[in-house]
Amino acid sequence: MQALWLEDKTLTLRDDVPVPSVPRGSALIQVLLAGICSTDLELVKGYYPYRGVPGHEFVGKVVKAPGRPSWMGQRVVGEINIACGMCQACRTGLRTHCEQRAVLGIVNHDGAFAEYVTLPLKNLHRVPRSIPDEAAVFTEPLAAALQIGHQVQLRPTDRVLIVGAGRLGQLVAQVLALTGCELQIVARHETQRALLGGRNITPTTEDAVPCQKMDVVVEATGSPRGFSLALQAVRPRGKIVLKSTYRGGVEVNFSPIVVNEITLVGSRCGPFASALRLLAGGVVDPTPLIVSRYPLSKALSAFEHASRPGVLKVLLEPTSLLE
Amino acid sequence: MQALWLEDKTLTLRDDVPVPSVPRGSALIQVLLAGICSTDLELVKGYYPYRGVPGHEFVGKVVKAPGRPSWMGQRVVGEINIACGMCQACRTGLRTHCEQRAVLGIVNHDGAFAEYVTLPLKNLHRVPRSIPDEAAVFTEPLAAALQIGHQVQLRPTDRVLIVGAGRLGQLVAQVLALTGCELQIVARHETQRALLGGRNITPTTEDAVPCQKMDVVVEATGSPRGFSLALQAVRPRGKIVLKSTYRGGVEVNFSPIVVNEITLVGSRCGPFASALRLLAGGVVDPTPLIVSRYPLSKALSAFEHASRPGVLKVLLEPTSLLE
Repeated sequence: MQALWLEDKTLTLRDDVPVPSVPRGSALIQVLLAGICSTDLELVKGYYPYRGVPGHEFVGKVVKAPGRPSWMGQRVVGEINIACGMCQACRTGLRTHCEQRAVLGIVNHDGAFAEYVTLPLKNLHRVPRSIPDEAAVFTEPLAAALQIGHQVQLRPTDRVLIVGAGRLGQLVAQVLALTGCELQIVARHETQRALLGGRNITPTTEDAVPCQKMDVVVEATGSPRGFSLALQAVRPRGKIVLKSTYRGGVEVNFSPIVVNEITLVGSRCGPFASALRLLAGGVVDPTPLIVSRYPLSKALSAFEHASRPGVLKVLLEPTSLLE
Repeated sequence: MQALWLEDKTLTLRDDVPVPSVPRGSALIQVLLAGICSTDLELVKGYYPYRGVPGHEFVGKVVKAPGRPSWMGQRVVGEINIACGMCQACRTGLRTHCEQRAVLGIVNHDGAFAEYVTLPLKNLHRVPRSIPDEAAVFTEPLAAALQIGHQVQLRPTDRVLIVGAGRLGQLVAQVLALTGCELQIVARHETQRALLGGRNITPTTEDAVPCQKMDVVVEATGSPRGFSLALQAVRPRGKIVLKSTYRGGVEVNFSPIVVNEITLVGSRCGPFASALRLLAGGVVDPTPLIVSRYPLSKALSAFEHASRPGVLKVLLEPTSLLE
C-alpha cells in the first residue's frame, strides 16, 4: 500500500509498505482522512526515535474485523494508546499510561499516513452520522483539549489564558469557552486571530498578558517563552496546564512556583467519547482550522505546508478522488 | 533590645535595636524560643535582599496589646504573613498571598531573633497549656508540612516518597505517616535516619528510589538533584509537591511531565490551628529534632551550627537563663 515512512529523521513516500496484518480483536481500517499535528513535525525533527508510518489523527472505515462482523463498514476514529491490559497502570484504569504501550504512529505501531491502519477494537469509537469526516478527523486533538477539564476543575467564573493559538490552542479555546469562563488567548498570527474572533473569543498579544491574574493558564506552545508567559500570568494558587510537546530542557525558576503555590499539570491524551459528543452536538466546530487537503501522494508537500509558521490544520487524504 | 541583624548578607548581634512600637490591633511579644530554618540560612546567602531582624519561627508571650487586655500574658505563636486585608488576594481569602504582604523576618517586618517582636493580633494563636515551648516553636514549619494535605488529597492507600529528611522533611514525614500511607523518605545522614526509625518510618537511599511508582512525592531538598529524584519516582498521573526554598533556576525536561501527566504543586505556609491541634494531641512530636539551644547572645554560633550538613533544629533563647 502507499504510506508515508519516517526513518532517520527523513520522510519518504513509499508504495511498497505491506498492508498490516490484523490479529483477532483488532480491525483493519481504511483511512479516509488524517491530520498533521505538531507532534508529527517534532517526530521528523527527532523528538522521539520513531521508525515507521507516522500519523495518529484519523477517521476511517473498518474493512476487516476478524470474528466481529458488526464492525464491518463502520466509520470510526481510534484512541492512539495501545495498552497491554495487564500492567499496574492498566489494572488501575490508566490505560493511556500503560507501561508497555505502543502508540499509533509514535511508538512501535504504524500510523495513519497510509491507506490502511490497524487498531484493537477496544480503541475504536463509532462516528455518529451527523459528524462529517472533516470534523471527525479532529476527534483525537479535541479529546486532548478536553483532557484539561478532566484533570483540572474549570469554573465558569475563572479567568483563563491560553498561550498559543495554533492547532491545539484553537481547539482548547473552543472547549474552554464552553465553560463560560473569562477567556483570553495569546495569538501571534492574523489567521489565528481571525478564527478566534469569529467565535467571539478574545485574542490578545504577549505584551498584554497581565501579571499574576489568571486562575488557569494553558500553555499550548511548547516553548520556553510560552512557559515564561504562563508563569507571569498565573495568580497565586493558580494552575498552569502544560498542553504541548516540549523538546529538551527548560530553565525554570522554581521559587515563584513555591512562593505563589502554583500548580503545574502535564496533560496529554483525552476522552474520545466526550469529543464525539461535542462534535455531534455541533457546539465545537474544528473545520475552519483546515487550511488545505493533500492526497497521500503529495504528503511531503503537505508536511512542508504544515510546518510553516501560523499554519493550522493540513489534512491528508489517502484514497483521494484528487489522485 | 538585643537582636540579630541582617544587612548585606552579614549577620551581626546588636544591643541597640529599638523595641518595636505597637500599633492598635497588634501585640508586642516577648520571644521565648525561636527556631533557625533553611530559609534563614538562605536569606543570609542573599536568596532575598532582606535588611532587618530575621527569624519567623517562634513562641512568645504577649506583653503589650493596646486596647485588648485579654491578650496580655498569653503564650502565642504567630502566622508570618502580614496581610493588607484589601487586595484581590485578601478579599478572596488568600491572605498568605496578599499582594502587599510583609513577612515576619523575611520581607519588611522585623523577625523573632530578638527579645521582642510585633505582629497583628489576627496573626496570633494561643498555645494550649499542654504544648511546651520546645514543641510550640515548631508550629510554623509543622503548619507548612500540613499545607501539603491542604493542597493535595493524600489517600491512606498512597505510595508516598519524601526526598530529603532535614528540618522540614522530618516534620513532613511525621505528618504524612498519620495518613496511613506507604511512606518512604530519602535520608542522607545517620542522625536523620535514626530519628525516622524511632518513629517507624522507613528511611531509604537515593539509589533505592524506584522508577515511576509513587503516587505522591514531596521534594524537600530545594536542590536540582532532589527534583530529578522526585521526577524519577513519581508514577504517571502522580503528584510532586515542591516543599522547599529553591535558589536560582533548575533545568527541567518538561516532556516526561506532559507525557506522564504529572502534577507539580508549589507549597508554602500552612494552617496554624491544625498544627496546634496535632501538637496538643501529642501525635506529632517535633522535639527530638532539637540538636541545640543557644542564648540569643550566641546567635552567630547558633547559625554556624545550623548551617552544618545534616544538622536539624537549632533554637535561640532570647531571654535565656543561660545568659
